[in-house]
Amino acid sequence: MHSTTPRLDIPALLAALTREEKAALLDGSDFWRTPSVERLGIPSVMLSDGPHGLRKQPESGDHLGLLDSVPATCFPPAAGLASSWDVELLGRVGEALGREARAERVSVLLGPGVNMKRSPLCGRNFEYFSEDPHLAGELGAAWVRGLQSQGVGASLKHFAANNQETDRMTVSAEIDERTLREIYLPAFETVVAKARPWTVMSSYNKVNGTYVAESRALLTAILRDEWGFDGLVVSDWGGIDNRPASLAAGTDLEMPSSAGAGTRAILEALDSGLLADTDLDTAVTRLLTLVERALPALEDTSADTSFDVDAHHALAHEAATASAVLLKNDGALLPLDPDTGGTIAVIGEFARTPRIQGAGSSQVNPTRVDTALDALRAALDGRRDLTFAPGYVIKSDEADPELVAEAVRTAADAEVAVVFLGLPASYESEGFDRDHMDLPAHQIALLHAVVDANPRTAVVLSNGSVVTLAPWQDRVPAVLETWLLGQAGGSACADLLLGRANPSGKLAETLPLRYEDTPAVGAFPGEFGRVRYAEGLLIGYRWYDTRRMPVAYPFGHGLSYTTFAYSDLVATVRADGDDPLVEVALTVTNTGELRGSETVQLYVTDPEASVHRPEQELRAFTRVHLEPGHSERVHLRLTLRAFAFWHESAGRWTVEGGRFGLRVGASSRDIRLRTTVELGGNGYVPPLAADSTAEQWLAHPAAGPWLREALGTEGFSAIMFDPHNGAMMRAIPLSRLVRFPGFPVDAEQVAVAVSEHATD
Amino acid sequence: MHSTTPRLDIPALLAALTREEKAALLDGSDFWRTPSVERLGIPSVMLSDGPHGLRKQPESGDHLGLLDSVPATCFPPAAGLASSWDVELLGRVGEALGREARAERVSVLLGPGVNMKRSPLCGRNFEYFSEDPHLAGELGAAWVRGLQSQGVGASLKHFAANNQETDRMTVSAEIDERTLREIYLPAFETVVAKARPWTVMSSYNKVNGTYVAESRALLTAILRDEWGFDGLVVSDWGGIDNRPASLAAGTDLEMPSSAGAGTRAILEALDSGLLADTDLDTAVTRLLTLVERALPALEDTSADTSFDVDAHHALAHEAATASAVLLKNDGALLPLDPDTGGTIAVIGEFARTPRIQGAGSSQVNPTRVDTALDALRAALDGRRDLTFAPGYVIKSDEADPELVAEAVRTAADAEVAVVFLGLPASYESEGFDRDHMDLPAHQIALLHAVVDANPRTAVVLSNGSVVTLAPWQDRVPAVLETWLLGQAGGSACADLLLGRANPSGKLAETLPLRYEDTPAVGAFPGEFGRVRYAEGLLIGYRWYDTRRMPVAYPFGHGLSYTTFAYSDLVATVRADGDDPLVEVALTVTNTGELRGSETVQLYVTDPEASVHRPEQELRAFTRVHLEPGHSERVHLRLTLRAFAFWHESAGRWTVEGGRFGLRVGASSRDIRLRTTVELGGNGYVPPLAADSTAEQWLAHPAAGPWLREALGTEGFSAIMFDPHNGAMMRAIPLSRLVRFPGFPVDAEQVAVAVSEHATD
Repeated sequence: MHSTTPRLDIPALLAALTREEKAALLDGSDFWRTPSVERLGIPSVMLSDGPHGLRKQPESGDHLGLLDSVPATCFPPAAGLASSWDVELLGRVGEALGREARAERVSVLLGPGVNMKRSPLCGRNFEYFSEDPHLAGELGAAWVRGLQSQGVGASLKHFAANNQETDRMTVSAEIDERTLREIYLPAFETVVAKARPWTVMSSYNKVNGTYVAESRALLTAILRDEWGFDGLVVSDWGGIDNRPASLAAGTDLEMPSSAGAGTRAILEALDSGLLADTDLDTAVTRLLTLVERALPALEDTSADTSFDVDAHHALAHEAATASAVLLKNDGALLPLDPDTGGTIAVIGEFARTPRIQGAGSSQVNPTRVDTALDALRAALDGRRDLTFAPGYVIKSDEADPELVAEAVRTAADAEVAVVFLGLPASYESEGFDRDHMDLPAHQIALLHAVVDANPRTAVVLSNGSVVTLAPWQDRVPAVLETWLLGQAGGSACADLLLGRANPSGKLAETLPLRYEDTPAVGAFPGEFGRVRYAEGLLIGYRWYDTRRMPVAYPFGHGLSYTTFAYSDLVATVRADGDDPLVEVALTVTNTGELRGSETVQLYVTDPEASVHRPEQELRAFTRVHLEPGHSERVHLRLTLRAFAFWHESAGRWTVEGGRFGLRVGASSRDIRLRTTVELGGNGYVPPLAADSTAEQWLAHPAAGPWLREALGTEGFSAIMFDPHNGAMMRAIPLSRLVRFPGFPVDAEQVAVAVSEHATD
Repeated sequence: MHSTTPRLDIPALLAALTREEKAALLDGSDFWRTPSVERLGIPSVMLSDGPHGLRKQPESGDHLGLLDSVPATCFPPAAGLASSWDVELLGRVGEALGREARAERVSVLLGPGVNMKRSPLCGRNFEYFSEDPHLAGELGAAWVRGLQSQGVGASLKHFAANNQETDRMTVSAEIDERTLREIYLPAFETVVAKARPWTVMSSYNKVNGTYVAESRALLTAILRDEWGFDGLVVSDWGGIDNRPASLAAGTDLEMPSSAGAGTRAILEALDSGLLADTDLDTAVTRLLTLVERALPALEDTSADTSFDVDAHHALAHEAATASAVLLKNDGALLPLDPDTGGTIAVIGEFARTPRIQGAGSSQVNPTRVDTALDALRAALDGRRDLTFAPGYVIKSDEADPELVAEAVRTAADAEVAVVFLGLPASYESEGFDRDHMDLPAHQIALLHAVVDANPRTAVVLSNGSVVTLAPWQDRVPAVLETWLLGQAGGSACADLLLGRANPSGKLAETLPLRYEDTPAVGAFPGEFGRVRYAEGLLIGYRWYDTRRMPVAYPFGHGLSYTTFAYSDLVATVRADGDDPLVEVALTVTNTGELRGSETVQLYVTDPEASVHRPEQELRAFTRVHLEPGHSERVHLRLTLRAFAFWHESAGRWTVEGGRFGLRVGASSRDIRLRTTVELGGNGYVPPLAADSTAEQWLAHPAAGPWLREALGTEGFSAIMFDPHNGAMMRAIPLSRLVRFPGFPVDAEQVAVAVSEHATD
């Protein structure tokens, strides 16, 4: 029974379905499935957690979906994968995930999470890509395109402004409109525009007092009407407070099953007139559209019900290798030569028992797990001695003196030590936020003891969210930040440490020196049911760069075993006005001895803006692969959004004419080339109003001369143009000035002038 | 005609006045006066700008009140005077101002300004006391008590949240409730409670979208009903947008004259029913009460129409001396010995042409002006040589090479140089904000040239608002920050430089290292008509201390020519609960060789708070005067507000039971003594609701055991208490959990439980 492009006759189904059946279709049938309607041949579809691997629970699973799941490839979670800055790679990971989901007859994989990393303390940061919306959006779009190419849908989450775990089900994120538009929405917008996800997941939280699930502004006006989203919105699991309100706003499907509560509430609201049948039909149409999109994969019995475990593990290995970030490498301590040299001391339990992913709903049951220790042993194959000491117990809060002593002896006897440190799983998880960003103190104490014994020490870090490096990193010549690398992270680390692979990851988030330096201090995680997004636009590097603060490592940073030179930057304005296009070209040359990859970053500045703008913003990037001595001409394109800010009065993206800076760099603080472009822009001229200031009136081409003549040169006018007090007077709205005794223009004259000039 | 305690029969007047007369009474009769009603014997009263001196314009003055005024003593503006931390002194300054106003038949002096210094760039910071509401409130209260003791009223301004000049007439200050209550209102509250000002001036701006002049919440609910203000609210000059709305909200008097526009609008609103006659009578009663309060001084013909110019100048000198802050004094470069030593080179035009006050409505026409140059010459009286070089032209933006060369020669030939630097008047004024906080570059270049020639250099600064010191201060051993010191500042400087007086000023605001470090970066002065108070509670030292940032000089800092030791701190809880009282005692000893004054500062910390609290907050201070070797036992009292935060859910000041830290210091970063107290507090327990989390339910004394039993131990319950996922599950509101399939409690059971436990 091979069916090709099976379709549902949705209008006919809408006509045939009863109101009760329609309402029931919008509620889960269990924890993971939509209901079927057998009499009309509407099948159930299954959604499953992800997104860095399939977490499909067996039929006998628990009611809450938190326990065991079928084995699947555990790719690097987003925090790791994002550091690759490699859209092509993310596309292939998405494809592999699609194949695994398809094999398990899962129709929607719940991901990717493109929320911004607002605070390093957010417990779920390991599931998110970046502090930068451009980077998160591009990576998320690539992942979704890959996934959906396999006939499996994505669920873009958590839309929107779900940037903390504390009080996540009720907290109101208080965000000004410009910040929402410029920071918290664009990654979603990019994925919707570029990858057309089948579903979007509405987040638990409120935005500015309204539950997102009940926000027509977010779910309909912006998501659908502005961005053109044509899929289904599903609630986050347990995220429905008021079912009729959420349906009216645009949350089509409630998950998981509300045991009929949602269905009853919808039917009552239809009876009372709170909801119209068109509301119901709109949501049911979207649900049926989802089912229709899922049908080809579900009905394709030619498809295997398994996947190539080895090939997917190899891809997980490739992804892990591309995701690790070499933070420092003084004296070229790394790579370790696998062929010559003394003993390599591997220290730290994480080398033997790797942490491959974060905790919570995203937890995958991996098909296998590589360890760095085994991989190093296998790769060295006896050519160099390798010794191992665990050094600490991962789950313990205290040092084990015997393990420390053993580690110190091991390091002292070795030529070089590689110390694996990281956060225990209990430190970061969905469901709660961290209250500090330090590694366990006993791990740091161990490191100091090891460095005392052998200063030739490299550190390998495993952590899903940022940790403080300042207290110890000056003492070690090399640090490899691996985030969480999935099931093949151990072998990837081994390859990178031994130079079998060349590090190419770049930080997708700033590593600050201390928690106190971070943007949301004092405004995270909020109180009294609200969290003020106080720092506004200035999250991540936008904060550190605008405030010119020192950081441990800047956004975009990452070393290689080779070196790259940047040259010959040319920027050309191809179009201007409402639809500008700037083409940027430069040459990157591999100036070292090894093949390597470099991620070129293009930041835009707007030094002449009438509004406050961040110091610089990432607007384009690309990854180049170069043999030693080779060069490549890199081309990047900038369009309207690269230069625009959200103008709250105009209600649109606005490019103010003037000069813009272009900075090309190997990180946000390693800018190699600079140039500028001039744009005419699509600027907004506010209409003249009675309460426009005298200065604004005087500057107006037609009203200005009129006012100047009306003011005359005596009395008031003498003060208006007085060098000491004139500026203060001209800053007064004209509607106020007319009340002052002796002002030579009256309110009626202003009213006439407004009517003449308001639309100029 | 000596009348004692003349009174108006206000009820009779209300009965006799026509509606038209009443409405007209609430509008100025000209720029500075209220109308009279001759047929009923209601006199006009006059209001005049201040507040650091009387700025009474002659009858022939301009219409805008910005030009010349009658001579008056120019005391140090608030930025200077606040650095004295001397409430007794501020009381005497207030008294003197009252005498001058009384002599001129001025009934209300428009001040003090107790707005917070939110950003160093605010153009009017020189008119405000501090970044700390406790300090500003205590100083303002003392000033008002002094002024009003002379039968002249204060006008407490600018109420509220008028913390910038940009767009000041229309901008909306967006402030969360807790920040408004804890930072921006308390100084006003303290002055109202402690000094009962006759009038309060409503500010130009909006708060959270509503013009303050039209905010019943601010002008009536908080100011009158909560704080007990019993005086009149006057608009800031030109600050009325909608007269009926402002009258209804509580703005009684519009100033200046609206040429009848306000009166007409009030009468129309009465006719249309928008306003009631009771609204009108309420405001007229307050206006007549103000007239009544003003009558004794107006009718006291025994009073002189002049004042003791010399005595007031002497007081201005005393105040200036107490207000200068010795920032650094390496190697005891200061004081300069007036009797022995080589030539003293005085460099800088400000030594000859002092800047004594800021620009704008507060500008006083001084009775005389002391210059530091003349005063130094007079004090030295030839015992040491003194040379002078102006070094720069104040109003110029560029260096004058000849003046620089002359200054360098002068310094090179001297034993010591004293360089006077500062901000030209055009750098800071009412009406606009600064766009940087640097001294003119040519002044700094001059200083470097002088120091190159003679490293024994002291700097004397004149600036109404904070300037950047970092680029040059490490090169000079001594810096005296004099802010703006009024007409006797020059002679005060001379006394301090020569040791005829001992510096005792303490910084009333933090001196940051750079503008980029300051709290409001990115959120000042706002855009699209709004300014977000993004930093919330963290203004001034609350920001720098909570974020543990380096500063140039911390809040409360100021050196002396002598030294003080702190000892024997004892804190005693005298009362707890709704009305706590903690008595704090310590001993201060003058351990140096000179008589001097020290300001002891008491900061409170709340490390166990459930909400975010600043690192520490100033809650008490006192100034002690000690002979060398002498000690004094200092007593300070802390009441509810010293420990409380504004609880937005409870809607009241709340002290959470627990341990509080007490820190006693010579500055916010020179803490000498610490202790703790335990308070039971008056904490708020929120009622249990359906959307309280499972964790909150389980913690409830009665509902907790019920829920635990209802959950059982199987299925769901196993997950609720699972060590990995339990915390995440228990963070879910109970009203959401009941929707999950299989949850063993249903919505009706929760509703019953809420009704039983909601008020516990």
